[in-house]
Amino acid sequence: MAVSNIRYGEGVTKEVGMDLHNLGARKVCVMTDQNLCQLPPVKAVLNSLTKNGITFQMYDDVRVEPTDQSFMDAITFAKKGEFDAYVAVGGGSVIDTCKAANLYSSSPESDFLDYVNAPIGKGKSVTVPLKPFIAVPTTAGTGSETTGIAIFDYKELKVKTGIASRAIKPTLGMIDPLHTIHMPERVVANSGFDVLCHALEAYTALPYKMRSPCPSNPINRPAYQGSNPISDVWAVHALRIVAEYLKRAVRMPDDHEARANMHLASAFAGIGFGNAGVHLCHGMSYPISGLVKSYRAKDYNVDHPLVPHGLSVVLTSPAVFTFTAEMCPERHLEAAEILGADIRTAKIKDAGLILADTLRKFLFDLNVDDGLAAIGYSKADIPALVKGTLPQ
Amino acid sequence: MAVSNIRYGEGVTKEVGMDLHNLGARKVCVMTDQNLCQLPPVKAVLNSLTKNGITFQMYDDVRVEPTDQSFMDAITFAKKGEFDAYVAVGGGSVIDTCKAANLYSSSPESDFLDYVNAPIGKGKSVTVPLKPFIAVPTTAGTGSETTGIAIFDYKELKVKTGIASRAIKPTLGMIDPLHTIHMPERVVANSGFDVLCHALEAYTALPYKMRSPCPSNPINRPAYQGSNPISDVWAVHALRIVAEYLKRAVRMPDDHEARANMHLASAFAGIGFGNAGVHLCHGMSYPISGLVKSYRAKDYNVDHPLVPHGLSVVLTSPAVFTFTAEMCPERHLEAAEILGADIRTAKIKDAGLILADTLRKFLFDLNVDDGLAAIGYSKADIPALVKGTLPQ
Repeated sequence: MAVSNIRYGEGVTKEVGMDLHNLGARKVCVMTDQNLCQLPPVKAVLNSLTKNGITFQMYDDVRVEPTDQSFMDAITFAKKGEFDAYVAVGGGSVIDTCKAANLYSSSPESDFLDYVNAPIGKGKSVTVPLKPFIAVPTTAGTGSETTGIAIFDYKELKVKTGIASRAIKPTLGMIDPLHTIHMPERVVANSGFDVLCHALEAYTALPYKMRSPCPSNPINRPAYQGSNPISDVWAVHALRIVAEYLKRAVRMPDDHEARANMHLASAFAGIGFGNAGVHLCHGMSYPISGLVKSYRAKDYNVDHPLVPHGLSVVLTSPAVFTFTAEMCPERHLEAAEILGADIRTAKIKDAGLILADTLRKFLFDLNVDDGLAAIGYSKADIPALVKGTLPQ
Repeated sequence: MAVSNIRYGEGVTKEVGMDLHNLGARKVCVMTDQNLCQLPPVKAVLNSLTKNGITFQMYDDVRVEPTDQSFMDAITFAKKGEFDAYVAVGGGSVIDTCKAANLYSSSPESDFLDYVNAPIGKGKSVTVPLKPFIAVPTTAGTGSETTGIAIFDYKELKVKTGIASRAIKPTLGMIDPLHTIHMPERVVANSGFDVLCHALEAYTALPYKMRSPCPSNPINRPAYQGSNPISDVWAVHALRIVAEYLKRAVRMPDDHEARANMHLASAFAGIGFGNAGVHLCHGMSYPISGLVKSYRAKDYNVDHPLVPHGLSVVLTSPAVFTFTAEMCPERHLEAAEILGADIRTAKIKDAGLILADTLRKFLFDLNVDDGLAAIGYSKADIPALVKGTLPQ
């Protein structure tokens, strides 16, 4: 069980320069994207670096929903810069890109596919030391600041895949609740759906004792190790926060308490799924995003069609949990209760259907698109979606 | 919020040699005590080191309830050995001693008092890099494998004090539930009382937002930072496990489920109090242990009078929580409910008394000594006990 260090509090971002100074960093790479580079979170980081006399270079070309090519562009920048520390300011796309940049610039002789998950890549263990890396999340969704996972679209195969290793986990995550108050409504909803599914999938993942084979050398064990007594604590706790605060956070932009709690829930769920793993919602989401045709997500300022990650994950969730309930019906029922279902007279055999119904109601209340058809898919796309899911 | 990496599972101890191999360690210091050095946990560690070709030296002279002198003996051994990694196998005494040995051998020019908590020591920040350190706890009490705290008796002043820094936290804690099945009955009870108080004190500690001043440089902030949304999760979860499993673990040595759960609870409470801090039960416990006259604890095989740490902590708990309830009565009532009280008709102003009564019942069920008088103190000792408490 690998857990990130996180620091939580309003304004903690302004301390990043001191942390880098304490780490002895002299030349820092700051990564962000074009939407964020003029916004307060990035400004707060840059001010802090300047104030503490830290030299830095800025890479603000991170692609929202990154690709192998956009990862490689960032890696090239990182290799050239010879940085001794990294700071990522953004959502999961930025933090994941920075993980890749830190990894491949620390292992310059590696081919890109060396560390990419098998079967698409070689899934090599990371044995090189990486540079210190501070992640400052600006969305409440991926929990990427707490995980050793970096996801990208592999264009050649039109699927999402990733790199998974404890070694690429940020050294420190700075959870500054002020950073999410500017998120547009749909970004709050979609990133909240990601937290919801992280929590539900981590809690219902195959238990760690049932996974086999377990590699005898700990360094070869996957970051995703199955549900366990520690990930369970985080998953359930995150789910309770989602149940209490997500609707408020979406509907009322000035509800700081709700947004701050969702920001924490994102990190908590990240610690949960970052160790337990995710399963079908996330596995199926990768082709759903990767094969996008013309869907343009409301509130996302990008120049390409996009199914936001959280949306692509949550759309299948009622079907997924109907299917998975058989494995651990008590947990499905418990999740339904946390999300508001009255389970006093529920039968254990109906656990999946009850959770599915509860999810549908929860999602419709939040104006989610109504299924895959609503984002542009038809029956004819099923073979391609299945093909994209299987490597996961 | 600094969280240790922990690995949980039956038999994980046999992996320690591989972990050290992965870390590139070539000369390892193994620390334990005279009671443990022939027992299965130490044997499992040594076998694993041998099997993986790791050269090691053994220091098995750790004192149960260590002193400044016993810390210094271990430090001398560590300095001489020039080790590149440490493994501690034992309870809090062993793990704490190993933290000190790792710290001072990595900072050989420092005086012993440099890193000791003020006002007794200078409370210097740790800026030197330490060696990798794997902790294998064999009791379910201190949670020392997850904290940056090392406690010892300072003989000159007859008080307990310690060293507190995130830097001395073990790199990895190995929670092997098989290790606690040989603990004698009173050791299970007393170490369980320590877990109970860690959880209760962390949950009722002054909230992090109310502590001041907050040092502007993060490196100067205390390990104990006040209760916060993350430590709360760990504290409450640990308390629930104590309520469910401690009595079973004490009464039935072969109840592996109960002992395994208490072993986990110890680590969980450690993460909670290691960040939030403890308060009066622990503060007062130090002179209660330090001024011991002739009390000899049942089930502890040592050649000196001893009030076990967990016992010295828990004896004052009913009085402490009666006193502290005013600060956060809801949390005191919630704790009482978790420990079995029926609070449906309870008044909030009675929270302290209700928790105290609940604790008394819980402790008497576990045959705890009946107050300070039962361990050899009288009214005449009060000035000395107060004097020993104040520096805390």
